[in-house]
Amino acid sequence: MRVVGLMSGTSADGVDAAVVDISKRKVRLLAFEMFPYPAALRRQILKLCRPESARLDDICHYNFVLGEVFADAVVKLCSRNGISLNSIDLIGSHGQTIYHNPIGKQYGRAMIRSTLQIGEPSVIAQRTGITTVADFRPRDMAAGGEGAPFVPYADYILYGYKRLHRAVQNIGGIANVTFLPSGCKQDDIIAFDTGPGNMVIDDIVRLMSGGKRHYDRGGKIAARGTVDKNFLNEMLRHPFLQRRPPKSTGREEFGTPFAEQIFQRGAKKGLKDVDIVATVTAFTARSIAQAYRKFLPVIPDEMILCGGGAHNRTLVEMLHRELPEVKMLSTDDFGISVDAKEAVSFAILAWATIKGLTNNVPGATGAEQSVVLGKIVPA
Amino acid sequence: MRVVGLMSGTSADGVDAAVVDISKRKVRLLAFEMFPYPAALRRQILKLCRPESARLDDICHYNFVLGEVFADAVVKLCSRNGISLNSIDLIGSHGQTIYHNPIGKQYGRAMIRSTLQIGEPSVIAQRTGITTVADFRPRDMAAGGEGAPFVPYADYILYGYKRLHRAVQNIGGIANVTFLPSGCKQDDIIAFDTGPGNMVIDDIVRLMSGGKRHYDRGGKIAARGTVDKNFLNEMLRHPFLQRRPPKSTGREEFGTPFAEQIFQRGAKKGLKDVDIVATVTAFTARSIAQAYRKFLPVIPDEMILCGGGAHNRTLVEMLHRELPEVKMLSTDDFGISVDAKEAVSFAILAWATIKGLTNNVPGATGAEQSVVLGKIVPA
Repeated sequence: MRVVGLMSGTSADGVDAAVVDISKRKVRLLAFEMFPYPAALRRQILKLCRPESARLDDICHYNFVLGEVFADAVVKLCSRNGISLNSIDLIGSHGQTIYHNPIGKQYGRAMIRSTLQIGEPSVIAQRTGITTVADFRPRDMAAGGEGAPFVPYADYILYGYKRLHRAVQNIGGIANVTFLPSGCKQDDIIAFDTGPGNMVIDDIVRLMSGGKRHYDRGGKIAARGTVDKNFLNEMLRHPFLQRRPPKSTGREEFGTPFAEQIFQRGAKKGLKDVDIVATVTAFTARSIAQAYRKFLPVIPDEMILCGGGAHNRTLVEMLHRELPEVKMLSTDDFGISVDAKEAVSFAILAWATIKGLTNNVPGATGAEQSVVLGKIVPA
Repeated sequence: MRVVGLMSGTSADGVDAAVVDISKRKVRLLAFEMFPYPAALRRQILKLCRPESARLDDICHYNFVLGEVFADAVVKLCSRNGISLNSIDLIGSHGQTIYHNPIGKQYGRAMIRSTLQIGEPSVIAQRTGITTVADFRPRDMAAGGEGAPFVPYADYILYGYKRLHRAVQNIGGIANVTFLPSGCKQDDIIAFDTGPGNMVIDDIVRLMSGGKRHYDRGGKIAARGTVDKNFLNEMLRHPFLQRRPPKSTGREEFGTPFAEQIFQRGAKKGLKDVDIVATVTAFTARSIAQAYRKFLPVIPDEMILCGGGAHNRTLVEMLHRELPEVKMLSTDDFGISVDAKEAVSFAILAWATIKGLTNNVPGATGAEQSVVLGKIVPA
């Protein structure tokens, strides 16, 4: 089955689109591209994400606008890669999250969780003529889950293996692991956020460069600095790292205020900027390694890296030193570029939905049961 | 196939729920009930319908709340009527429209039409364990239609007949006709708004009673008055009535300001209140009859009434006098109560979607092609 996966993240930079061929448990990536949103559209989307500035008429309008934008991405990706639109069997679209409330709000005696993604799949199906599965999160919430994360299911399909224990380690803004014990079944999957990913590193780089740089490209800045062990140990006392999984975190705990505090403390200690970058890079590496030692039933044989952090060579080397017994790989080694991984995941989720397979991971989302996620819009 | 249809109208009074058995072209109504919303919920919903008062977090929250309310309606309807939930194969849910823009808003060089219904179908499917089809309107809009009306398809399934020309005449706030010529195919259906239904009558009754009465029950007030022919002819010059179909109207043209104007003019002419009610009742009847004579290719053999106006005996008698050659029936004569008709329609639409049948009527919505409406949420 040939499937397109579409993903637009919370940063609303653009839409990731991937074409994959899926057969049983083999997934082959045929094409990938990120289509950036025009600046004005991005501003509008970010406005829609805040209750203070989101208007009903705009939500309604941009739901359909994003449907058109997503459909365009599918058409362009196929034509640029010489893939016939007719050969595509299915589209899986995550959509753009504009609101997500996993804690819930009271209604009567019940706590009602809710989530809202836009990017009208009826428009995608109509423009492309391809059956489209979208809106994955609501069903998991209806089943008592947090509506996230869903990538662990794709990790399981892609990397679950009879003979080895594997950990798929995503390093995005936040870092999260999917642990797949050898011979793992869907119920055996363990997935949780390990702590900060690139978020703190990026913020420190922004602060030290006065906003000129946004990340530590290739880990070159960190490579020039020295890790301050005392300072690192202070950071490792962060309460999130002590909490038992399942657990998830975000900007509330590791966002800009946290980075600003680190930056000021580092300066007070007389550390150079590059040393602070090196130390927060080590913080990400060490917090991942500690999470493995503390919370996984066994140290994995292999670690498969993905997410932007996989491009940070200093971070990857530190991880290697922290977990010398683990073989370090990346999703690239399995034919899926680290950047394409999330879009590929939603292609896999859609494939499962259309096959009638349950595709949430209750151990990761907290749902009371396995369910078939998503809504199917016929071609 | 046993299907539940759910409908919540723009007045947001509550949810209509109907259970039907559908086999080929036979539809049997097993149970119907209207479940009123609690007053606080109704207020919240109406708040969500206005861009000035609708908040993103509330839209997200009440989408899930209404999903729960709709699921409850299904469960209650079945249990009160001794119908096992296990015997239900499918649910069709229209949802609650909170925004609808059939004209569209510019994005780049394109005009983007959009519509937004809430009442999360993932919640309905999860609570009931029944596959749920919902969100019918977006696909018709994606195909270039106005996303309404959809009832003509159900009329076609229910009342299309080889040997007779039939008109299904709904008299809600606005009156609309579905014309089904004998041996009619989906492309032969003609459907449009004929003009005011109960809207003007209701408003006049409210004005004359100082808000104490909301409608002319059974047409008793109109029965006590006399139609003023000059005044009636004035009303009939309304430009909407002259426009060729496809056409649709609403509160913009026949809402409270229009009724207030009529009420004042009637008083100036020295008419008694009951005469004004009689005259606006004749206005509805005559505008329907005129629409048939002007815009239908042939006067129907039978007219099948539905909607609240079917309960107004004075109105029905007037219609009979206007169209003496037409046999007057109501959907009750076919086993579906006039009140259940809309909920039944969405059961039929869902049935068609799951069968893969195209179920919009391009002649009614203006869509460029026939499409399969709706999103399917697996059980």
